[in-house]
Amino acid sequence: IASRLPDIGTSIFSIMSKMALDHGAINLSQGFPDFSIDEKIIHMVQRYMLEGNNQYAPMPGAPALRNIIAKVIENTYTHTVNPETEITITAGATEGIFAIIAAFISPGDEVILFDPSYDSYNPSIRLNGGIPIHINVSPPDFSIDWDIVRSKISSRTKMIIINTPHNPCGSVLHEKDLRALEQIVLEHNLLVLSDEVYERLIFDGIKHQSVLRYKALASRALAVFSFGKTFHATGWKAGYVVAPEYLTKEVRKTHQFIVFSVNTPVQLALAEYMQTRDHYESLGTFYQKKRDFFLEHIKGSSFEPLPCNGSYFQLVSYKNISKKGDVEMAEEITKKFKVASIPVSVFYQDRTDNHLLRFCFAKMEETLERACEILRKI
Amino acid sequence: IASRLPDIGTSIFSIMSKMALDHGAINLSQGFPDFSIDEKIIHMVQRYMLEGNNQYAPMPGAPALRNIIAKVIENTYTHTVNPETEITITAGATEGIFAIIAAFISPGDEVILFDPSYDSYNPSIRLNGGIPIHINVSPPDFSIDWDIVRSKISSRTKMIIINTPHNPCGSVLHEKDLRALEQIVLEHNLLVLSDEVYERLIFDGIKHQSVLRYKALASRALAVFSFGKTFHATGWKAGYVVAPEYLTKEVRKTHQFIVFSVNTPVQLALAEYMQTRDHYESLGTFYQKKRDFFLEHIKGSSFEPLPCNGSYFQLVSYKNISKKGDVEMAEEITKKFKVASIPVSVFYQDRTDNHLLRFCFAKMEETLERACEILRKI
Ligand SMILES: CSCCC(=O)C(=O)O
Ligand SMILES: CSCCC(=O)C(=O)O
Repeated sequence: IASRLPDIGTSIFSIMSKMALDHGAINLSQGFPDFSIDEKIIHMVQRYMLEGNNQYAPMPGAPALRNIIAKVIENTYTHTVNPETEITITAGATEGIFAIIAAFISPGDEVILFDPSYDSYNPSIRLNGGIPIHINVSPPDFSIDWDIVRSKISSRTKMIIINTPHNPCGSVLHEKDLRALEQIVLEHNLLVLSDEVYERLIFDGIKHQSVLRYKALASRALAVFSFGKTFHATGWKAGYVVAPEYLTKEVRKTHQFIVFSVNTPVQLALAEYMQTRDHYESLGTFYQKKRDFFLEHIKGSSFEPLPCNGSYFQLVSYKNISKKGDVEMAEEITKKFKVASIPVSVFYQDRTDNHLLRFCFAKMEETLERACEILRKI
Repeated sequence: IASRLPDIGTSIFSIMSKMALDHGAINLSQGFPDFSIDEKIIHMVQRYMLEGNNQYAPMPGAPALRNIIAKVIENTYTHTVNPETEITITAGATEGIFAIIAAFISPGDEVILFDPSYDSYNPSIRLNGGIPIHINVSPPDFSIDWDIVRSKISSRTKMIIINTPHNPCGSVLHEKDLRALEQIVLEHNLLVLSDEVYERLIFDGIKHQSVLRYKALASRALAVFSFGKTFHATGWKAGYVVAPEYLTKEVRKTHQFIVFSVNTPVQLALAEYMQTRDHYESLGTFYQKKRDFFLEHIKGSSFEPLPCNGSYFQLVSYKNISKKGDVEMAEEITKKFKVASIPVSVFYQDRTDNHLLRFCFAKMEETLERACEILRKI
């Protein structure tokens, strides 16, 4: 039996979370909160279960949830979407990404993506026979040179994947990036997969540059969002895809056979919970405080923070204290000092090592404080 | 944008459920219960949420759930599986099926399947570049001629898909089938995808012929199971795949990038709920009663029931009263008489029409009674 993904081993997230557990380390590796979620939404899930909402939701998602999403998108991005035909609820953003790639990438199609890149993009492209074309971007700001992008476009190019706010970099794309992307996409008749799972985790007054803000771009784009990130419940596995009808039609075809539908009571609870704007609008402030708390407390350490404008990840450089590889460094700090992080080289297809570690600050202040106390001693 | 699945429209399940709703018909089409689930398990889900289990479960599934599954399999099929390496929790059986096909089917690989077949098999094979080889089986018993199977095997054959108890037919495979399959599989070095989502819905004292009962077969098989079917919660979207380690390794690679993990509190609640044997062992009796109730009440109608030994579906022939196509017939009965069913021809790739309708009897007795009262008048 030949493996279709011979190079894929256990994901770095599982490896580091397990290492943290095995060595009693503070886990700032895998991206998830260590604090409680709002009990209100838990009680809503329970109520919907008790009221008998335990059978298949409609394949594209519960209408109530798609309706409120459309309203929130209208308010946030002044973009009108039809909840009937342009929104699909997925089993987390991960399934959304996979369903999009499965819907559009045929054998031989090229997909341009930027490294560091989230670990699911490349194998999802390859499983569908596509050819991932990785373009490296570099610290400290990880900005994209759109002329290089143009030079990589061939007659086989089908799609470009962007991700803003960025995991693992914490960087964001700006209006000029979206404008450049829009031009390229229209010129070459490409699709855009826009991973916007951290749309609300954006700081310092910066406006999130959703593809949905750009009319022409939005006409060729599939934007992916995550309830897990926005409502602190990564384990509930719910997300959604927004795309024009002619693209949504194809995404639903693959979604239908990948999972068919998503947990019904969770969808209904999310729909009700989202009626209150404060439940999602306060998120940027909430996480900016955590980022600042983390930055404040690693001051005086040998780690140098990079700019972080969004996401719940802070990159730090350790090049002042060691020339070791980042995988070795992350492992050593986890085992010896008991703080787990993610080495950034794993997000580069060619394993470029800029001596960077990623710390997740979606944690209670006391967790961050204990971790930083240790980090200051290294 | 060329569609990768140009022939796929809205699924028959969505079409008929919507038609039932629009016309106020009793919905015996899509397969799901219309009665409440056990409140105990709802309270368990709530407790696990309140206790803070809302973040990513481990990628292969919660250990507690995999452990109890292994025990139940040991007790049920006297087959030992290692929960660490041979069980993977999936976002419903649908995701399990897709993850298996994505893990093993490469462009050009042939997959043998039997029609009527569940609607996700064919497109899942094609999305991965595989070639579905459909073999028709026929009423009343839908038995497989294993010599025909042998004649269809080529050097490209990679996998055979079986489904017992069968959706939509309600038929089951017997020991002689599993023995024949085992021989073929070993001889030709094939894999088996065994869809056993109705494993516990089996009647008349018949023993479910899981691939897990056959040592040599199990060494080449991936068995798919469903919590939704067993615990009356199709909307919770949880299932699992059992396969030897060398196969599970590959399934987890695709599962990791398709959804990563499955709803955490649901998994923990299922693990606790399954500790009580009666919660799943009584299921056959429970549904046999419903089948018998349905059969009792359509007696005297013009519909002729076919043998049903498992699943929650009863096929009936209407050839005594009409020569109409089954799609038209199902539509007419839904709209004019207000009982929705599924036409069986949609499960044949070549749309073979045996004038059969599928009725789901996973319904309250009063629902079945009302439906049969109508059916008796047609
Ligand atoms: C799906 S596990 C990874 C979680 C995450 O988004 C991350 O840590 O980058
Ligand atoms: C996923 S919707 C279909 C439900 C089902 O298994 C059926 O009706 O056959």
